Amino acid sequence: MISSLTNERVKKIIKLYTPKGRKEAGLFVVEGPHLVKEAKEAGLLVEAYTTSDKYEGELVSVEVMKKICKTDTPTAQIGVCKLTDKHEISDLILVLDGIQDPGNLGTLMRSAKAFGFETIFLADKTVDIYNDKAIRSSQGAIFKLNFIYGNKIDFINQINKTHHIFSTNVSKGYSVEAVQPFKKFVLILGNEGNGVSQEINDLELENLYIPIINTESLNVSVAGAILMYELAKKTLK
Amino acid sequence: MISSLTNERVKKIIKLYTPKGRKEAGLFVVEGPHLVKEAKEAGLLVEAYTTSDKYEGELVSVEVMKKICKTDTPTAQIGVCKLTDKHEISDLILVLDGIQDPGNLGTLMRSAKAFGFETIFLADKTVDIYNDKAIRSSQGAIFKLNFIYGNKIDFINQINKTHHIFSTNVSKGYSVEAVQPFKKFVLILGNEGNGVSQEINDLELENLYIPIINTESLNVSVAGAILMYELAKKTLK
Repeated sequence: MISSLTNERVKKIIKLYTPKGRKEAGLFVVEGPHLVKEAKEAGLLVEAYTTSDKYEGELVSVEVMKKICKTDTPTAQIGVCKLTDKHEISDLILVLDGIQDPGNLGTLMRSAKAFGFETIFLADKTVDIYNDKAIRSSQGAIFKLNFIYGNKIDFINQINKTHHIFSTNVSKGYSVEAVQPFKKFVLILGNEGNGVSQEINDLELENLYIPIINTESLNVSVAGAILMYELAKKTLK
Repeated sequence: MISSLTNERVKKIIKLYTPKGRKEAGLFVVEGPHLVKEAKEAGLLVEAYTTSDKYEGELVSVEVMKKICKTDTPTAQIGVCKLTDKHEISDLILVLDGIQDPGNLGTLMRSAKAFGFETIFLADKTVDIYNDKAIRSSQGAIFKLNFIYGNKIDFINQINKTHHIFSTNVSKGYSVEAVQPFKKFVLILGNEGNGVSQEINDLELENLYIPIINTESLNVSVAGAILMYELAKKTLK
């Protein structure tokens, strides 16, 4: 059992909580038996650590687990996984243009998987998908999605040739209910406070909004899910 | 300027972060200029504290602000507010049966306001609406909604006389798309992990689910928003 907080392997795991450490090792950490199981099923699990005989992995003391996991209440098992390596282009694509809150990013990954948006393009200024809160909120969707990085304007100009593109704007555009179905399309969501970036607004894309009763705004992960749900429904029909 | 961490007013504010302290004082704390403004507009603001001349309120040192606010990065202004006292019954009602995550509760409050669910019934085991994370995620909706507490079965049996009742179940029931419009109705959402409680399932109410492509599950605040959106849309038509 690993019980020393200065054990070399403990030190290596802690490094995986920084973007630099993850990049250097090509690894990231997932917390909790549910996510470890999903990692294993996705073929990305490298090794596991646990405080309990009930779970697979190297035994560690509760003190060590507190050190190598990020949840307030230490989990019973963590997994060290290879970074995801799926980069295919699906028919339905989500572009995230500056999502800042890791909980929102993870929830959007989870909804994207549920509604068949199998590819996510992550524009600059979007929070890291390997942030521990993003991973937890994704509930395993992180292992099943394709992720694309790059220049967002180049990506949009390129994908425009095969996919219809919808951006979002709360103050102008079409109600998502009035949209015609498309077999292949892209949905662009913007930052929590400021929406889609000026650079993308300048492309003058077709903007969608959600018809709501009051003048209130919605959380971006909620708004994104409603738009994905409505668009995916139309595509299916 | 208040700069002492042991100042009597500082001590009083800190007590408002516990359910007991809030109940005794009849007050709660909101963090950030946006929420203080909303509290003022709702007529619930009692006093404000700030680290900046730019905002209204008693000046406090940054050290004191760190002590009296809950956000990791201390906010520039907090407000002490009266507990909300709206308890009316609206046409569209949301029943929360054991929501545990304060972020989910706050996001559900925000979406409820947006889609016209002006009354929320909070069943036992549902997290406190005055939890600091719930308040932040509600984005001010907490000041505008009616909240009802009590025995959930009694409430459902009573409201059944005037409102149509929909519960939720991912494995059985009707697609929300197939639902007929009602002028007055109740939507029941359950706990993140376990769904609606056995006691409510035993009432054999009409269950709704969201038609989704994959077999994935959705975050409860996302699922709740999609159901509210679909049901509110039908009611409007």
